[in-house]
Amino acid sequence: MNVTATMQTLQVENGAFLRQIREILPEFDPVRLGHEMHARIRELYPICRSITGNGVRETLRRIRQWIPLEIHEVPSGTPVFDWVVPREWNIRDAFIKNAAGQRVVDFQKSNLHVVNYSIPFHGKMRLAELKNHLFTLPDRPDWIPYRTSYYSESWGFCLSHRDSLRLADEEYEVYVDSTLEPGHLTYGEYVLPGTSSDEVLVSTHICHPSLANDNLSGMMVAAHWARCLQQIQRRRFTYRFLFIPGTIGAITWLARNETTVVPRIRHGLVLSGVGDSGSFTYKRSRQGDAVVDRVLSHLLDQEGLEGKLLEFSPYGYDERQFCSPGLNLPVGRLSRSVHGTFPEYHTSADNLDFVRANSLEETLRLCLMIFRVLEANRFMLNLNPKCEPQLGRRGLYRAVGGQADAGALEMAMLWVLNLADGTRDLLAIAERASLPFSAIETAVRTLEQHQLLEERIPGKKALGA
Amino acid sequence: MNVTATMQTLQVENGAFLRQIREILPEFDPVRLGHEMHARIRELYPICRSITGNGVRETLRRIRQWIPLEIHEVPSGTPVFDWVVPREWNIRDAFIKNAAGQRVVDFQKSNLHVVNYSIPFHGKMRLAELKNHLFTLPDRPDWIPYRTSYYSESWGFCLSHRDSLRLADEEYEVYVDSTLEPGHLTYGEYVLPGTSSDEVLVSTHICHPSLANDNLSGMMVAAHWARCLQQIQRRRFTYRFLFIPGTIGAITWLARNETTVVPRIRHGLVLSGVGDSGSFTYKRSRQGDAVVDRVLSHLLDQEGLEGKLLEFSPYGYDERQFCSPGLNLPVGRLSRSVHGTFPEYHTSADNLDFVRANSLEETLRLCLMIFRVLEANRFMLNLNPKCEPQLGRRGLYRAVGGQADAGALEMAMLWVLNLADGTRDLLAIAERASLPFSAIETAVRTLEQHQLLEERIPGKKALGA
Amino acid sequence: MNVTATMQTLQVENGAFLRQIREILPEFDPVRLGHEMHARIRELYPICRSITGNGVRETLRRIRQWIPLEIHEVPSGTPVFDWVVPREWNIRDAFIKNAAGQRVVDFQKSNLHVVNYSIPFHGKMRLAELKNHLFTLPDRPDWIPYRTSYYSESWGFCLSHRDSLRLADEEYEVYVDSTLEPGHLTYGEYVLPGTSSDEVLVSTHICHPSLANDNLSGMMVAAHWARCLQQIQRRRFTYRFLFIPGTIGAITWLARNETTVVPRIRHGLVLSGVGDSGSFTYKRSRQGDAVVDRVLSHLLDQEGLEGKLLEFSPYGYDERQFCSPGLNLPVGRLSRSVHGTFPEYHTSADNLDFVRANSLEETLRLCLMIFRVLEANRFMLNLNPKCEPQLGRRGLYRAVGGQADAGALEMAMLWVLNLADGTRDLLAIAERASLPFSAIETAVRTLEQHQLLEERIPGKKALGA
Repeated sequence: MNVTATMQTLQVENGAFLRQIREILPEFDPVRLGHEMHARIRELYPICRSITGNGVRETLRRIRQWIPLEIHEVPSGTPVFDWVVPREWNIRDAFIKNAAGQRVVDFQKSNLHVVNYSIPFHGKMRLAELKNHLFTLPDRPDWIPYRTSYYSESWGFCLSHRDSLRLADEEYEVYVDSTLEPGHLTYGEYVLPGTSSDEVLVSTHICHPSLANDNLSGMMVAAHWARCLQQIQRRRFTYRFLFIPGTIGAITWLARNETTVVPRIRHGLVLSGVGDSGSFTYKRSRQGDAVVDRVLSHLLDQEGLEGKLLEFSPYGYDERQFCSPGLNLPVGRLSRSVHGTFPEYHTSADNLDFVRANSLEETLRLCLMIFRVLEANRFMLNLNPKCEPQLGRRGLYRAVGGQADAGALEMAMLWVLNLADGTRDLLAIAERASLPFSAIETAVRTLEQHQLLEERIPGKKALGA
Repeated sequence: MNVTATMQTLQVENGAFLRQIREILPEFDPVRLGHEMHARIRELYPICRSITGNGVRETLRRIRQWIPLEIHEVPSGTPVFDWVVPREWNIRDAFIKNAAGQRVVDFQKSNLHVVNYSIPFHGKMRLAELKNHLFTLPDRPDWIPYRTSYYSESWGFCLSHRDSLRLADEEYEVYVDSTLEPGHLTYGEYVLPGTSSDEVLVSTHICHPSLANDNLSGMMVAAHWARCLQQIQRRRFTYRFLFIPGTIGAITWLARNETTVVPRIRHGLVLSGVGDSGSFTYKRSRQGDAVVDRVLSHLLDQEGLEGKLLEFSPYGYDERQFCSPGLNLPVGRLSRSVHGTFPEYHTSADNLDFVRANSLEETLRLCLMIFRVLEANRFMLNLNPKCEPQLGRRGLYRAVGGQADAGALEMAMLWVLNLADGTRDLLAIAERASLPFSAIETAVRTLEQHQLLEERIPGKKALGA
Repeated sequence: MNVTATMQTLQVENGAFLRQIREILPEFDPVRLGHEMHARIRELYPICRSITGNGVRETLRRIRQWIPLEIHEVPSGTPVFDWVVPREWNIRDAFIKNAAGQRVVDFQKSNLHVVNYSIPFHGKMRLAELKNHLFTLPDRPDWIPYRTSYYSESWGFCLSHRDSLRLADEEYEVYVDSTLEPGHLTYGEYVLPGTSSDEVLVSTHICHPSLANDNLSGMMVAAHWARCLQQIQRRRFTYRFLFIPGTIGAITWLARNETTVVPRIRHGLVLSGVGDSGSFTYKRSRQGDAVVDRVLSHLLDQEGLEGKLLEFSPYGYDERQFCSPGLNLPVGRLSRSVHGTFPEYHTSADNLDFVRANSLEETLRLCLMIFRVLEANRFMLNLNPKCEPQLGRRGLYRAVGGQADAGALEMAMLWVLNLADGTRDLLAIAERASLPFSAIETAVRTLEQHQLLEERIPGKKALGA
């Protein structure tokens, strides 16, 4: 019964997911999409984004050229759970000029030079005083760090450590031409309705300035995932894509949708840092064994992808909010290299070279596989549960008996028939059988055609709610 | 407290099980029984069995000489769950003659030469056409494969690859002198009543022609297990031994006994391939932790036997039917080398040399140990549960204190007293204590004699139903 | 997010527990206490203790000089569960004199020379007969074994094997000047009330004669633990310290307090053999996951202590009685080297050199940490469970964002906020977060001060009852 060998063959066929994706998207061209996503990251890279302001507005306006985003504006001062929507920050220019009048630190060269959310300032000071406002990375002397001061009224500059060492002990002119005034928090939302009002939430943060992986990669994969789903006729779930400022954006969206959309979320994924060349990382939801956790565990374990699973922890991106104990949504996070564990993180080295077209498209393919599994994962009932049904009579079993092993499809059918008792979903059957979900899906379709199986609708809870 | 060392001594004493078996069967002579079983396999080996027909009838008639089997005949056409009892197949002769009139493939030399259940055929054809009906094993050029065509109306021949290469491009006369006509499916059943109507089911398939391990070994161990149990006066369970054609026989028996016998089955075992020189393999029931699963796990783990445990899968022998989801019986399978994993499987090399007298008797001894544990496994209640009872006063504890370790029986008594709270059976106590079941059994008998324990009858469910 | 590195720093700070202990006991001086405990062991070492009699009385009288013990006297003949309080044993002298009238075995030299509880005897006999009453350790020819005959009326002597080989074949005078008469069983009890009537039980056996580790070390750590707790103003639990003869003392105490004190016991610890230089061993309670089991598992795992955990077994010290199935109290046992596994066990080599001042004080420190965790372990509820509360506004979060890792206190606060949903205690949060309990405790205090958390009183059961 050389099942393992047989299955390996099947797995290699499915390994790249490409055949399976083309079943639902016949025109799917990964190479073209990879280059397209990278080109669009290049386009958005120079914009100075923050958690509010025109940088985010401009970013969403351009994404709306690719998918029909609805753009929301929430006024400063709006209470959202324990927080308040902050004043809107905008910046035109910022510099430090030396005694000779030369710009030694210049926002026009990189928007990372200004601590994000710096309050307006204009003045002169000696180096000693100025140093209290400077941030560098001594270990990476050529890189500019990325720093923020969202909720403390202060100003600062970031620069390479090498440049900071060149600053002479003289007087400098400092200018931060920013405004921090009542305005709005801006976010984008795109909903693709399905046959069910049960929702799949995909969320990506949009508040980082010129950092490519964190998080232009997330925005780009989310936008193209949405574009792909547009082309698919039949969707079971409603898919909701959020393009939101980190933390305060997620809190704002959750506060505004707490009683309407939130109760309909069945599965969710935060996308962040998905364009670098590292292997996949999936961080489980706080629930730990939500359907989306099991889907990613299955796809990363069974399908020959490199990747690792992390348990939930309350530090990271917006899964912190979605998985707070009073909401406890089944939302995990898909990344490649994990934030804070690679040197380029939150520095100017997270640039256009750090993200790769082929990494972006591979992430998109994984997202489409997640879609396939979520859509196909059901509870099925064997309609002939006493002894095996006679598959041979239905042409579903080899005619000549006695060989040492069953075929892969035969094994998948036998597993489905044996385990489809309405107590476990198809994903659980795939896991128990150590077979790729796609093999189980094929077996289910075949058995359904022969009236040997039917779907059983469990209570909402079992669906992962 | 050198418990491990003390227990190892005890374990070695019990290792061979022989002392324990002789407590219930004082005359038990393993060497004689091993040779007797091998001799009876030799006697049955030449018969051409199939899932129906006179081969099975003749086999059961001979087994009835050793145990008083009841033989059942079920008419062709009888509906059994999703299946129908097939027409009866019988064969007298079959050959392929070359142009010179010589039998180049001859059923009289080996019944494996004909694809089992081949329909009647007589005709002439050239080699090219004939080849569509020939089966060989190119990797094992001297062996004849075993093939069947139960549920597709066709005919064929099996031969060694070496012989097939000698066939010249000429005209051949092909003759299959078989009949496939309305008749009966035949099976045997033997019931040994116990004090309880709760049943232990032992099932073995009888449909394979000249293959020794698969499954004359299973028939022989089942028959001799039954003979041994006949000699034991007191049995708690009723034991039912089935000698049935694979798949269709199990389905037929289950369909006929669904509402009568099936609900009384508490434990069950499929015996197949138990005579080769490989170590033991136990495949768990679909339930996974049924009492019989725990018994075999304990005996293979704790008693120093070589052996491995397999999780349930829906491919194999008749455990497929007993463990279908609508029945889900606590039935596991005991084998030695696993079907499909050794080259001799389903070939002419599974012959009289492939099965060994000492393997057969060792399997029989394991079966008798399974009997012992199933019979003795009960739920007990410590009647003095607050603090330890004073064992010393009852002569159950060494007189002089202070030594570093307790004796093995003392440890077993302390474990039983501590864990016998009615929530776990004795097997669970043995597992928790890491002691052989026999040590626990001895402790229980001792404590019962001193009125420190009594049996607690749990609900049916806890008994493994 | 280099949390591990940050936490390691924190752990090293806390490693010695000293800073934490001094928060509750500012004067705590481990070195002085270690020497004090060792000096008091020296003082008690020569007394010939047993399960009854004046040795135990004298021992308790001296302990009462340090803590205000209540001393109980239970008359011989009192039924206690399955047992009866035995007659009281006292001994004045014992010897074996050779033909020349020399004391060749002399109780005055070591009280281990007499089998403890030997009945009175005076007579003459040849060596051959005498040998039936002698106990030696051939493997350790210089050591005297410790033996008892509590519940069988006999007498005997223990001596070094080397001395036994020198005994000539002549007549000896044997004298055991003991009495075994109706009297009392004596034990000591000290209760430190807390704000709750829920109790923590600390039990230590006091019946061994001149053996230092087993169990003068246990008595001494228990007495000094009690002295430390006296100095702490606010205690949540009531602490009860028992100084009792092994087995019969525990049974007697349990029988007398079954319906009064026993139902109030929430956590308990048997202290025995805690003064040698081996690393810590904690033996879990029969429940296996009682709060005290989890506390010790956490302290031994997370706090960088060497130590190992043992599963419960029904052999050992008085945890056997506390964990009998009809009582099943949450009582574990703390030891260093495990009884029966080191050669000095129950021999004259368990002497004043075998116990160390620094081992005694390290055990005391661990006991005080157990106190800290038991007292601080509560169920907390996040009062702002929907999304994270805004820690920055409250001064609880760094002002400048963007760094790769959060601080240790920030991480602890995030974990507490995420997991404090009333379903798990703080210990479970520490375990899930892989943080020291002290970090969680600090985070909880901080969050409580900001009205972000409040205690939730669960049912008694969840507290470990």
